[in-house]
Amino acid sequence: MIRTAIVGGTGYTGVELIRLLSAHPQVELTAVSSRSLAGSAVSELYPALRGICDLSFSEPDAIDYANLDLVFFATPHGVAQSMMAETLHKGVRVIDLSADFRLRDVPLWEKVYKTQHAAPDLVAEAVYGLPEINRDKVKAANLVACPGCYPTSVTLGFLPLIESGLVDLSTLVASCVSGVSGAGRQAKIDFLITECSESFKAYGASGHRHQPEIEQVMRDSISANADALRFLFVPHLAPMIRGMHSTLFADLTGSGVDLQSIFEKRYAEEPFVDVLPAGSHPETRSVKGANLCRLAVYERDGRAMVLSVIDNLTKGASGQAMQNMNIMFGLDETLGLTGAPLVP
Amino acid sequence: MIRTAIVGGTGYTGVELIRLLSAHPQVELTAVSSRSLAGSAVSELYPALRGICDLSFSEPDAIDYANLDLVFFATPHGVAQSMMAETLHKGVRVIDLSADFRLRDVPLWEKVYKTQHAAPDLVAEAVYGLPEINRDKVKAANLVACPGCYPTSVTLGFLPLIESGLVDLSTLVASCVSGVSGAGRQAKIDFLITECSESFKAYGASGHRHQPEIEQVMRDSISANADALRFLFVPHLAPMIRGMHSTLFADLTGSGVDLQSIFEKRYAEEPFVDVLPAGSHPETRSVKGANLCRLAVYERDGRAMVLSVIDNLTKGASGQAMQNMNIMFGLDETLGLTGAPLVP
Amino acid sequence: MIRTAIVGGTGYTGVELIRLLSAHPQVELTAVSSRSLAGSAVSELYPALRGICDLSFSEPDAIDYANLDLVFFATPHGVAQSMMAETLHKGVRVIDLSADFRLRDVPLWEKVYKTQHAAPDLVAEAVYGLPEINRDKVKAANLVACPGCYPTSVTLGFLPLIESGLVDLSTLVASCVSGVSGAGRQAKIDFLITECSESFKAYGASGHRHQPEIEQVMRDSISANADALRFLFVPHLAPMIRGMHSTLFADLTGSGVDLQSIFEKRYAEEPFVDVLPAGSHPETRSVKGANLCRLAVYERDGRAMVLSVIDNLTKGASGQAMQNMNIMFGLDETLGLTGAPLVP
Amino acid sequence: MIRTAIVGGTGYTGVELIRLLSAHPQVELTAVSSRSLAGSAVSELYPALRGICDLSFSEPDAIDYANLDLVFFATPHGVAQSMMAETLHKGVRVIDLSADFRLRDVPLWEKVYKTQHAAPDLVAEAVYGLPEINRDKVKAANLVACPGCYPTSVTLGFLPLIESGLVDLSTLVASCVSGVSGAGRQAKIDFLITECSESFKAYGASGHRHQPEIEQVMRDSISANADALRFLFVPHLAPMIRGMHSTLFADLTGSGVDLQSIFEKRYAEEPFVDVLPAGSHPETRSVKGANLCRLAVYERDGRAMVLSVIDNLTKGASGQAMQNMNIMFGLDETLGLTGAPLVP
Repeated sequence: MIRTAIVGGTGYTGVELIRLLSAHPQVELTAVSSRSLAGSAVSELYPALRGICDLSFSEPDAIDYANLDLVFFATPHGVAQSMMAETLHKGVRVIDLSADFRLRDVPLWEKVYKTQHAAPDLVAEAVYGLPEINRDKVKAANLVACPGCYPTSVTLGFLPLIESGLVDLSTLVASCVSGVSGAGRQAKIDFLITECSESFKAYGASGHRHQPEIEQVMRDSISANADALRFLFVPHLAPMIRGMHSTLFADLTGSGVDLQSIFEKRYAEEPFVDVLPAGSHPETRSVKGANLCRLAVYERDGRAMVLSVIDNLTKGASGQAMQNMNIMFGLDETLGLTGAPLVP
Repeated sequence: MIRTAIVGGTGYTGVELIRLLSAHPQVELTAVSSRSLAGSAVSELYPALRGICDLSFSEPDAIDYANLDLVFFATPHGVAQSMMAETLHKGVRVIDLSADFRLRDVPLWEKVYKTQHAAPDLVAEAVYGLPEINRDKVKAANLVACPGCYPTSVTLGFLPLIESGLVDLSTLVASCVSGVSGAGRQAKIDFLITECSESFKAYGASGHRHQPEIEQVMRDSISANADALRFLFVPHLAPMIRGMHSTLFADLTGSGVDLQSIFEKRYAEEPFVDVLPAGSHPETRSVKGANLCRLAVYERDGRAMVLSVIDNLTKGASGQAMQNMNIMFGLDETLGLTGAPLVP
Repeated sequence: MIRTAIVGGTGYTGVELIRLLSAHPQVELTAVSSRSLAGSAVSELYPALRGICDLSFSEPDAIDYANLDLVFFATPHGVAQSMMAETLHKGVRVIDLSADFRLRDVPLWEKVYKTQHAAPDLVAEAVYGLPEINRDKVKAANLVACPGCYPTSVTLGFLPLIESGLVDLSTLVASCVSGVSGAGRQAKIDFLITECSESFKAYGASGHRHQPEIEQVMRDSISANADALRFLFVPHLAPMIRGMHSTLFADLTGSGVDLQSIFEKRYAEEPFVDVLPAGSHPETRSVKGANLCRLAVYERDGRAMVLSVIDNLTKGASGQAMQNMNIMFGLDETLGLTGAPLVP
Repeated sequence: MIRTAIVGGTGYTGVELIRLLSAHPQVELTAVSSRSLAGSAVSELYPALRGICDLSFSEPDAIDYANLDLVFFATPHGVAQSMMAETLHKGVRVIDLSADFRLRDVPLWEKVYKTQHAAPDLVAEAVYGLPEINRDKVKAANLVACPGCYPTSVTLGFLPLIESGLVDLSTLVASCVSGVSGAGRQAKIDFLITECSESFKAYGASGHRHQPEIEQVMRDSISANADALRFLFVPHLAPMIRGMHSTLFADLTGSGVDLQSIFEKRYAEEPFVDVLPAGSHPETRSVKGANLCRLAVYERDGRAMVLSVIDNLTKGASGQAMQNMNIMFGLDETLGLTGAPLVP
């Protein structure tokens, strides 16, 4: 059994992690921390978890890290940094769902997140936890930085194209759409049902935090001339709870390439990436609650167009975290992650 | 392993059953039939099931019943009746999710469903599959009539009151609300998102098919003087996919009774009925995708008021069917049914 | 032209009032106040009002009351009270959309709203602005207390029954459903789309603030023996923005009464109450954005059942306020209020 | 008074047109036709129109065209064609909301709509009713082809860029999102709330009917070298009723251009195009029910990005039709079209 705890378990990635871990046969969840709710039952905050999780929230300091194999951080950015050295020092491995260790470029991180990095010396130790490109490094990692939802969705869609050098790197555009759970569980007027239901809008149109993260991971996979990358990312908010859809555009450098076959080959061995038959339109509901990315690829008048869907809370966060856990601990990568999406 | 098949697997109770059975460790699903879609892959109709269910729809006649332990009927009313004698004759046990065998009074059934009953002689053989009142009969049954969603939600809410003779039976009112999946997967303008989203309405206000079913099951549980029952049931449609909420009213015959304690005792041993702490407001999302009924009970000025939620497709249909299966085959009643609700 | 201003225009009843007043041919809206947003453009808060309302929010004190004919208060409870004496003193008439002057019983008000009443001596001066029962008093009023949304919806539904003495007053039950805009524009986690979408629940099940208001207005209309009134009100939250649906139950005292005809007669002259044909199911969307109450009445086994829909922000608040204004100033009662509901 | 009628009034553009015309001070709506519902009241189909529209549906042949000034066709494609010669012959002017006369290239129309054109000789007579480019031609037109929703939204967004020759015409991409009312009022499983709510997907990804229409109208406005146009259009479906959002991308040919100012100037005199302040994110709800297009423009790393929102049923269909009517009959272009959007 993997003994584990969640630091910061009141948000949506926290509750999704509890849901997934509770169904994992090899995990014992020993503690969930919350500074503000310490002492009250997890199932009081989330009545859906009555009978699933009997824990009460603990103070973060009350967790007995030395007795654990693994800790998940599901905290706002800045928190994991401040506790990381101490945590790793106790011999616990860590999967961080926050943005704290995703960017290797510390000054860039500080610019994007508008705060000083609290553990710059640990950044190099972190492995970017996208198993589809970093599986081997994840195995050995003590600190896994779990990717953001947009970076997961966009990268998996562009990967077969940029690894093969098939597209003009100066033409990449990602027009992405997220359900509102991506904004987290925070009391903001913008995310009231009365404000965002029956409406659709872009946000962060002048630049979003996930852009440098996507650029970093894509650059790592570009076959040649990564400096040519000119990438435009624009996110939108759709009136739904879960789900992320990315529509990706890039000019093809040549013609006569069978994109469908390239995508199918690239992901043939990947348990959580599903290339749909040619002509498909992946729906976000087809991955609801499941650790899956479904893709469709089109060629349109000299351009490649990719449609990519994930559940932002599952393959886009907590499911991917548990996939990384399985890899880190030598388990079957799909353990606890084979449940069907909830449709309808 | 229980070898099973689903007759009529294209509707929402069908796909929910596939989802649940695919996670059950003791079941082999060998066939799913559909007359109209025979030959095409289940996952073509429901891309969410890619990788979960590799079957193609069969013709109903192509199912090798003799080789099965159990068949589920997830068909419109009328179909199970027409195939039941033959099916039982082959030694297969049956769980029927349709309304065909729920009413013991055949003329009443024929009046309510406006058609002649095709197997009136088998009606007496059917056990009404609400485990919370009929567990022992279900164990031995060859034919289980799985309750409707409204009857499940309403009955579980009234049960502690009527079994104990605490309420004036002439004052029962159930004001219920269903998500639209209760209407099934049928191409009707009324259920377009453009017609039923952002709106709320009652339907069947002059009388709904589930009323006689609820009355029958409640009469069976009334401690005395069942003829006094005067029960008003009115359903409503809420703009959501899944979920059923019942608000139940009844005049108390006496005072000074601790309703909370009566409810808690009644369901103390029930794995799928959860009595919430006093003062709670059960939300339908707290049971989304889960085989659970959550209840809260109030006393208000001489009246009892009960709030009851289920997922109409799970405890209201396919989950309850699988619960009945577990009972019929001597398995742990909760096997395959312990997954957490999907929140948010 | 009626010169008017809105005190507290940032909430949903405020913006709805601006929308309606902007289409009224006889009104000049001179100011909208907001303490927190004073100085910023109304259309910055509500881009939908660009080109409709060119005002900037003012400080409440900056409004030149002496120069106005009418002031609307669209403030949280407590505010109108504190400013009322002074406002009336300046010779301005007032329509208060808050709860401040709705209850004639000051100690009851203080118990319900858990605060001391700041203008108890003005309570007697206030006219309860439900035109369908108080039209003549409204005409002459200087201070109109505009009814709550639940009281409007419930009272209009019960009125023909209780005025005629047709029902047993000890059996009244109202099971009501509101869209989330009824909760106002406040940053609370409960009303995030991620929390209340795809879910349904009751709230205030042990007693809601609108209950005494409904009881007061119904008592005023009861033909005889108002003390017999025993009324249970329970509100629910539906995953939609606008709309309120009330399902009302009462035992009939006699039989052979033509309820349909009684309802049609009662409201024959009312421009904003629409009795639907027998057998109808009013949908909340059929009154979206319109100052209308649509009703259907059923007889079921000795009981009357009424279905009543309004838009909680229009006939339930700002539309009704403007209807009262038309009455107070001797205009055609329907002026500015004849726009069609927005369907789909 | 303009005497008018609607042919095909049962769909969503039909009911929206009735809503808008009913508020227009200079229009008399004399008939609404529907072959299937002839004889039944319009308000029976749309209870929201009780008290707004007292007409019953007529047979199309029963309309007395000779007595009318204007006819709207709100029919599926193919119908207006078959009746057009006869209708124009009677001296009635026509606004066709269908696709029948939008494309000047008849063979292209026949390829796209997969049917023979029934009135190819009338195509040249039709004026494409986008007032922002064709106002003068609309004035004199007898037959106005009202633009599709995507073409309206996309064209108004690209117009300032392509008229000024600021962008590389081979780089145009439009990633668009529509509410489900764009699919019309048809009984299809795909558009059930249970199928499309809580989900997001692309559709028509290999090519959509509106692409050639957009290309035609954009080519007309391109300053030079229209053959260089390479345009990719991909539509998506969002879980909402109304609203259309287009995100447009194009490479800038130069730098140092003030896009904001170019957009503001282009639309300074347009009553129904609103250029938002720099940095804005237009929401579809900000135009709900209103005949408005709101735009925001960004420069991102050598690219122009435009965000464009309309209500697909209003500026995208029936509102634009009424705007065209105002122009054709010499009325103030905004008459009847100044109502505020419905927010929240």
